[in-house]
Amino acid sequence: MSAALASLDSPSITAIRGSQRMSLELRHGGRREVDVRYQLHGPAHAPVVLVAGGISAHRHLAGNAHWPEAGWAQGLVGPGQALDPQRWQLLSLDYLGGDGQLDLPIDTADQADAIARLLPSLGIARLAAFVGYSYGALVGLQLAARHPALLQRLVVVSGAHRPHPYASAWRALQRRAVALGQLQCGDGHGLALARQFAMLSYRTPEEFDERFAAAPELVNGRVRVPAEDYLDAAGARFVSQVPTTAFVRLSESIDLHRVDPARVRVPATVIAVEGDRLVPLSDMVALVEGLAGPTTLRVLRSAYGHDAFLKETDRINALLASALTLPGDPA
Amino acid sequence: MSAALASLDSPSITAIRGSQRMSLELRHGGRREVDVRYQLHGPAHAPVVLVAGGISAHRHLAGNAHWPEAGWAQGLVGPGQALDPQRWQLLSLDYLGGDGQLDLPIDTADQADAIARLLPSLGIARLAAFVGYSYGALVGLQLAARHPALLQRLVVVSGAHRPHPYASAWRALQRRAVALGQLQCGDGHGLALARQFAMLSYRTPEEFDERFAAAPELVNGRVRVPAEDYLDAAGARFVSQVPTTAFVRLSESIDLHRVDPARVRVPATVIAVEGDRLVPLSDMVALVEGLAGPTTLRVLRSAYGHDAFLKETDRINALLASALTLPGDPA
Repeated sequence: MSAALASLDSPSITAIRGSQRMSLELRHGGRREVDVRYQLHGPAHAPVVLVAGGISAHRHLAGNAHWPEAGWAQGLVGPGQALDPQRWQLLSLDYLGGDGQLDLPIDTADQADAIARLLPSLGIARLAAFVGYSYGALVGLQLAARHPALLQRLVVVSGAHRPHPYASAWRALQRRAVALGQLQCGDGHGLALARQFAMLSYRTPEEFDERFAAAPELVNGRVRVPAEDYLDAAGARFVSQVPTTAFVRLSESIDLHRVDPARVRVPATVIAVEGDRLVPLSDMVALVEGLAGPTTLRVLRSAYGHDAFLKETDRINALLASALTLPGDPA
Repeated sequence: MSAALASLDSPSITAIRGSQRMSLELRHGGRREVDVRYQLHGPAHAPVVLVAGGISAHRHLAGNAHWPEAGWAQGLVGPGQALDPQRWQLLSLDYLGGDGQLDLPIDTADQADAIARLLPSLGIARLAAFVGYSYGALVGLQLAARHPALLQRLVVVSGAHRPHPYASAWRALQRRAVALGQLQCGDGHGLALARQFAMLSYRTPEEFDERFAAAPELVNGRVRVPAEDYLDAAGARFVSQVPTTAFVRLSESIDLHRVDPARVRVPATVIAVEGDRLVPLSDMVALVEGLAGPTTLRVLRSAYGHDAFLKETDRINALLASALTLPGDPA
């Protein structure tokens, strides 16, 4: 295990970025040596909350005194938020396959097993909570099903026990766009198109109607619709940040995901978004009906659909604050 | 004008396939010579109903004694159906651009103008009805707005006064898939992928959940989801039937479409499908609220979404039968 200890604000603050090498039996890849990169930040003896995001998320949650650059959970993590690094030690990690170095089918169960191996090596006997959004929700369900002793509470946002077959078809076509780009040695073109199609599944018609209802333009004799500038930017940003192999293998990983909700017995809060086109409310309700432990369902209506957790940060924060209030906490 | 008269069952039956050459002022292409291919079939003096379908539809509606091959409206046209060729003369046509020979932006107004030029040359003073599905509905709205004297009644199914901005973005990405395929001189690959993405917009999550909920397979180390066989077949069939340029230009044409509903004064029946992901019910309701003439709205709930008109033929037939009952008809 290698770990870099950043300079500390005070002796009681943990701020570690590390990498843990482990030998892991992958569900579809046999035994492999893998590195799990993580970040741990918060008061040294505070309870630990693991925060996990979508397939392009990583271990850096939000800018802070140690690592000032913005993170993927920028609006959700910070002083005064439900995920307050002054209240919790926040643990986060790069997903297996997130660096594009693992070119084989990766199961959400593999991600959970890697976390189960990581925790004891960090001296963490049990997470106070696992908070997972989107792909992170799938990993959290696997962790709760496979390693229930490792978490006290599970919070899943916009992720269910199975991928919806329509969403799987949508992702399969995104992977075909990548393959089409690769046929002409233009990874970037295919990956950008895949991301652009994915954006349509992350957002909603309501949002597009508000933002992009103008008439199209003719550019070089071709029709260009108003949303294309936005989609261009989304594609380019993604290509600059995510390796093609990482996208393909983590996209596949969502489609491989299956958890029997009856195997999940830890107390859970399920936050669902009405209008999510990727994870329909009906699947979130089926998850809640199947979970074996005490469960709370909270439903949010948002024009941001699947991306609500990144955009409706105030409302998600309020729901998280309530989910993370443990018995004995001051009201 | 060239017209081929097929052999007749009896002297009172019209069965014509013809082609009308005309000089047309295209909205985005200037004046052009174009050919409009049409088919007219039914009792020689019966009222004429024009039937128009989606962008890959054409002039052959359904198999009959003259042309036995199946058509695109196979379940909707035939003896005993609302669109009965023993009751009406059924007129249908190949869209401008449908043969891939017109490589420029094509407006739905151009399609309507072509029809307006075709009718008098066939001796048709006025259509008893224009029945348009999907793209055909857009063309029908344009015809009613621009040439109101040419139709007695308009029936629009799953098509509104504007393209929804989210659907436009979806189509723009399909056109990018075509362009990506063209980069490597593999038109077919790009067009197939575009059609596959389009299929997701034509159908619904409910249908995919019923048909494709099985676990994925690993094929050559890649994840393959159950819907991919279906999508492969849909892509291949489309590539064999529709020229790439026709797809691109008619897809654009939907995005160029704009009609002010207040300009439509002919009596109209609007058939909307709840669950249509391409033409949301909200836009169909807005259309109905804006139409200036007497209007009837019928709403169908279907797991086939935008494709309901091709799949729910019994229910569509019943709605059409009622829409096509004119004052004075026997009940």
